[in-house]
Amino acid sequence: MLNIKRLSYEEAQVLIDGAAQKAREMGIPMCIAVTDESGHLIKFDRMDGGKISSISIAIDKAFTGAVARKGTHVYNELCQPGKPTFGIHMTNGGHFSIIGGGLPVVVGGEIVGGVGISSGTAHEDVECAEAALAYFYKTTGLTA
Amino acid sequence: MLNIKRLSYEEAQVLIDGAAQKAREMGIPMCIAVTDESGHLIKFDRMDGGKISSISIAIDKAFTGAVARKGTHVYNELCQPGKPTFGIHMTNGGHFSIIGGGLPVVVGGEIVGGVGISSGTAHEDVECAEAALAYFYKTTGLTA
Amino acid sequence: MLNIKRLSYEEAQVLIDGAAQKAREMGIPMCIAVTDESGHLIKFDRMDGGKISSISIAIDKAFTGAVARKGTHVYNELCQPGKPTFGIHMTNGGHFSIIGGGLPVVVGGEIVGGVGISSGTAHEDVECAEAALAYFYKTTGLTA
Amino acid sequence: MLNIKRLSYEEAQVLIDGAAQKAREMGIPMCIAVTDESGHLIKFDRMDGGKISSISIAIDKAFTGAVARKGTHVYNELCQPGKPTFGIHMTNGGHFSIIGGGLPVVVGGEIVGGVGISSGTAHEDVECAEAALAYFYKTTGLTA
Repeated sequence: MLNIKRLSYEEAQVLIDGAAQKAREMGIPMCIAVTDESGHLIKFDRMDGGKISSISIAIDKAFTGAVARKGTHVYNELCQPGKPTFGIHMTNGGHFSIIGGGLPVVVGGEIVGGVGISSGTAHEDVECAEAALAYFYKTTGLTA
Repeated sequence: MLNIKRLSYEEAQVLIDGAAQKAREMGIPMCIAVTDESGHLIKFDRMDGGKISSISIAIDKAFTGAVARKGTHVYNELCQPGKPTFGIHMTNGGHFSIIGGGLPVVVGGEIVGGVGISSGTAHEDVECAEAALAYFYKTTGLTA
Repeated sequence: MLNIKRLSYEEAQVLIDGAAQKAREMGIPMCIAVTDESGHLIKFDRMDGGKISSISIAIDKAFTGAVARKGTHVYNELCQPGKPTFGIHMTNGGHFSIIGGGLPVVVGGEIVGGVGISSGTAHEDVECAEAALAYFYKTTGLTA
Repeated sequence: MLNIKRLSYEEAQVLIDGAAQKAREMGIPMCIAVTDESGHLIKFDRMDGGKISSISIAIDKAFTGAVARKGTHVYNELCQPGKPTFGIHMTNGGHFSIIGGGLPVVVGGEIVGGVGISSGTAHEDVECAEAALAYFYKTTGLTA
């Protein structure tokens, strides 16, 4: 039997809080998604003014961060035309995101969930996702 | 020009809080979704132990409550075999829910959003959705 | 942090072995799927002569058994016309199976995976899935 | 009347065994799929630690290897922007894979199935797929 660590409902809220706080600082109302380690949604928030098109993008980014185990911005580089992974954004029913803003949530060397941010530019979304993770580690005392 | 009333991010949280409180009383960890009046997701929560299969069901119930403008349990009755609305659960890409637990959120006679609950029986999901609405009206002072 | 039990690769093979052995006794080449507790596929086998249409049905049954937490034959009864859960087979992108042959795999009171069988009648598929579980408990020494 | 050669259930297992052995040597837990000559799944294995996002990618690679009759890495080159086959990864409902790791299984000059590997880099996936084929020919005594 395998023993899996998974983000709890309360820990997912910490990621939401960290992302929302950063989004307010940036002045960009964001869509924020948190999944478990298997890519299934735990929490989603669309701040007032967050983009409708970013609802599914944020969810896909969190999914990809959790289950493909890399930041979605890393896949963006790996999947450019000319690269051997070109085309991976079409897989998983189109839910494999290669736009920056999705990150795995790592605790004690294990991926326990994913966080995905969307509504800004890809760079702004990455910045907000990283801030969510930093807030998560600081608030919970957990370490990567 | 139309002037649309829409649930805010903060008001959506009140619905989540009301549903989660009722779910804890019932001892059933629920998936809870809140959409705006256009059916687009504002907030989603899966409590620890909420069913994976209920993630999309809760979202579909909230969508249907908001945009089809009836409780999903009402559609369940209207859509039984032999009824003229039979088959409507196949529409909208399969996202039209006819399982109880989705309700429109009405303020001042206008639908401003939808709430959807899933993980219990249909009857339990309806009970939890109704409690979320009651809590919402009591907390915000708004009226249907 | 949640602590989740999940079927291992080797334990999934035991379920495949138990189902295949029963299928041979019944003289019905089966499609056999085993998922983890989150509904994600671990192993799939189509025996020589198993139906092509049963590939996705077996996978959907195992998914449903794991994440909706009931035997798919139980949902068949709950979802008949006239019942409040009628229509649930349309949810989850059509992957919610309500045809007998999908069962949760329970160990120590927790669902650790799902098993799904397809190619026979619904009754034969249930019989084969139950035999797979019985073989699993006997071989591993684990208990429900 | 056509007479079709098709991988048997037992022969599919040989491909799985060859891939799993190579994956263990490489230290990469892989998703491994084997389809028949029509692209329909015969066997699938996700080793402990194989990526969730690689389940469908491995299946799509095996499908493509069998039915499009080239290694998926060959299509990667043929389908780059500027090439006349650009866009083929959008076809077949998004299941046409152009990421290395899918190969046709050829016996006596005929394609009898496909094998698809995913969880490593594209190059690692190709290496594992090739090792599975080599093991298959060595173990069965069959020749391409």
